[in-house]
Amino acid sequence: MKVTIIGTGLMGCSLGMALKKNGHHVTGVDQNPVHLEKALFIGGIDDYKEFDDAVKEASLVVLCVPVDAVKNLLLPVLDILSPGAVVMDMGSTKAEICSAANNHPKREQYVAVHPMAGVEHSGPMAAHVDLYFQARVIICDAQKSSTPSLNIVLEILQEIRMKVIFMDSEDHDRQLALVSHLPQFIAYALASLNDFSSEDNKDWVQLGGGGLQSSIRLGKSAAEMWIPIFDQNKGHLIEYIDKYMAKLSDLKIMVQNNQHIEMNDNIKTANTNYEKLNYRNNKPRPFVPDKGASRVFYS
Amino acid sequence: MKVTIIGTGLMGCSLGMALKKNGHHVTGVDQNPVHLEKALFIGGIDDYKEFDDAVKEASLVVLCVPVDAVKNLLLPVLDILSPGAVVMDMGSTKAEICSAANNHPKREQYVAVHPMAGVEHSGPMAAHVDLYFQARVIICDAQKSSTPSLNIVLEILQEIRMKVIFMDSEDHDRQLALVSHLPQFIAYALASLNDFSSEDNKDWVQLGGGGLQSSIRLGKSAAEMWIPIFDQNKGHLIEYIDKYMAKLSDLKIMVQNNQHIEMNDNIKTANTNYEKLNYRNNKPRPFVPDKGASRVFYS
Repeated sequence: MKVTIIGTGLMGCSLGMALKKNGHHVTGVDQNPVHLEKALFIGGIDDYKEFDDAVKEASLVVLCVPVDAVKNLLLPVLDILSPGAVVMDMGSTKAEICSAANNHPKREQYVAVHPMAGVEHSGPMAAHVDLYFQARVIICDAQKSSTPSLNIVLEILQEIRMKVIFMDSEDHDRQLALVSHLPQFIAYALASLNDFSSEDNKDWVQLGGGGLQSSIRLGKSAAEMWIPIFDQNKGHLIEYIDKYMAKLSDLKIMVQNNQHIEMNDNIKTANTNYEKLNYRNNKPRPFVPDKGASRVFYS
Repeated sequence: MKVTIIGTGLMGCSLGMALKKNGHHVTGVDQNPVHLEKALFIGGIDDYKEFDDAVKEASLVVLCVPVDAVKNLLLPVLDILSPGAVVMDMGSTKAEICSAANNHPKREQYVAVHPMAGVEHSGPMAAHVDLYFQARVIICDAQKSSTPSLNIVLEILQEIRMKVIFMDSEDHDRQLALVSHLPQFIAYALASLNDFSSEDNKDWVQLGGGGLQSSIRLGKSAAEMWIPIFDQNKGHLIEYIDKYMAKLSDLKIMVQNNQHIEMNDNIKTANTNYEKLNYRNNKPRPFVPDKGASRVFYS
């Protein structure tokens, strides 16, 4: 299949590597020529072209750009997309993007996709052929895409062994605000505290251990990616920020007043929630033999 | 050397394993007989005894219990400690514990120690011989311990290849509130949000990825250990909770008002702080040949 990847950063190049391994031809599009050369160098794309040519020739166009750029590019792509071809995006927010596409006459040729496979790094040089391997991927508002469009996307996603989930785009954005956008926001808040620059805490780098490191790991993520996500999911995000701040206030009062029983109850809930997530992420997975460059389906 | 470890959980048994490897005799004390049997089984101690006998016979007593228990046990240990012997604790707070010991006639035989080597697990079965390897360890208020006492503790800590730092106990508690106790507190707050139990977010375990997992990793830590730390470092902790909540409010307003430039500035600070910590934690370390069970000094 001829695939055009728009945006040759970490997500785009990792996808390109996996698709090339499965025998597809991958063309890159990027406004940054340095990214395109790096993408070629690491094998994330086969070649690169201008936007119009690359879109018109493709059977599948994948938007691997920040969600504000997805919103700007999706309709121009649909405008010139060939009959029978499909465009999918890889954005972390879905409601605003789907809503922007809903009135386009070629809406059926768009599939809204969110792969749950980000890392805190960015750029083509951070790409990895196995970034998506066995990760979950959400397809939103599938009933608005045509069956042939869905099948093209499903084939690709299952080839690279992602595990597909269907969701409504509004439900997606609300739940992702809790499990992804809020943790990102609070890591930025912690890691940007002015106290890390104060003379009082001049030893913080020396003293900070693994606990601090995992707490601010997401603080490394790029502003270009996350500011548009916060923008597009503002409503749900702010609702959860408020709930989180209310919880911080409650726990702070428990510390102030030595309310050990109430504190203990909250910590037990935290222990349990961690275990639930940890169990799911680490439970044994079925063994799937690797067939190299041949197409392997996995569900 | 005859070492008595009071508290045979993760910290105590990991220390016991490392000391036994270096040829010391390790006696365990614990009010929980199941912990003592497990500690024997995994090789964290050589034998176990009652409190009085174990303390009187020891050249070094190590308190590996939660910081409220350290405060309760330190004076009784000093009362019956043999001449020339030393007691050290392993607590994460230092000012209140040091202050409790300061008027004891045998204060010079106490060394206040904080190894920066915790993990989110607990109990003897989670112990590991290398838990302390190349980790930092803080000795507080060293001028209040006698030189022979300090030398016994330094010998032990350097044998297990910890990197020693001296600090004032007040300074320790303030800086640790920022780099350790605040991150722990906010992980508990996130992981105990009621929203994880609501029908609206019933898919959260399925949707939560590596980002959520690292954000709530500390949420697994035991209440028995952390409630007393929050208690003893309440003043500094609450100061940083307030600053953190102020930062959350500021960032929330930036999201609400589309203040992208201000948000970008904060995220760049977060990126930089993450890199500083990551660089220190991952920089190349000098190669030190392992001499097996012989005593290896490392500084």
